[in-house]
Amino acid sequence: MAKSYLQVIAHYYVKRGHGETIAALLRELAAASRGEPKNLYYDYFRSPADPDHFVILEQYSDANGLAEHRETAHFQRIGLQSIVPLLERREVSSHMVNEPDA
Amino acid sequence: MAKSYLQVIAHYYVKRGHGETIAALLRELAAASRGEPKNLYYDYFRSPADPDHFVILEQYSDANGLAEHRETAHFQRIGLQSIVPLLERREVSSHMVNEPDA
Repeated sequence: MAKSYLQVIAHYYVKRGHGETIAALLRELAAASRGEPKNLYYDYFRSPADPDHFVILEQYSDANGLAEHRETAHFQRIGLQSIVPLLERREVSSHMVNEPDA
Repeated sequence: MAKSYLQVIAHYYVKRGHGETIAALLRELAAASRGEPKNLYYDYFRSPADPDHFVILEQYSDANGLAEHRETAHFQRIGLQSIVPLLERREVSSHMVNEPDA
């Protein structure tokens, strides 16, 4: 059966000195986000070459999943109120993936 | 101008105890891969929650870029001969992304 999902790739560039705080906040945000009905995958990674550069990989079952994720209480509290103020910048790309039958 | 590229997401799960070796090999492979004519982006990241889990994000200017990357001497030497034998498993997905005009 063909499978389609929304793939999100989010690059977070952290203000110097806040890397450990962001790692802890992302651990909390990941756990809460994985419980969302449309979430298929949520994990976060850190660059060995630049510890202030994190990437978050997310998958949602449809194109509205990311927008709904951003409306959740946990994203509002952890993402917008705690994480975003500690970022230099963020680059988020999302696109629908349509995988043909295996 | 609309932009299309091949997005690659590669998850590498490393055999226990080889994480530092893989990080060093990926640093070398990343530097060489960024020099390929069709490469638009190549970076590697490590999971804070599971240090044996790496993810590589790559972008190529067309659908053949990944296949051509795999034919290069540096991928054959560093990727196939050095990295792959130290992996439990790998999961590689790639899909074309067509970004509309900004």
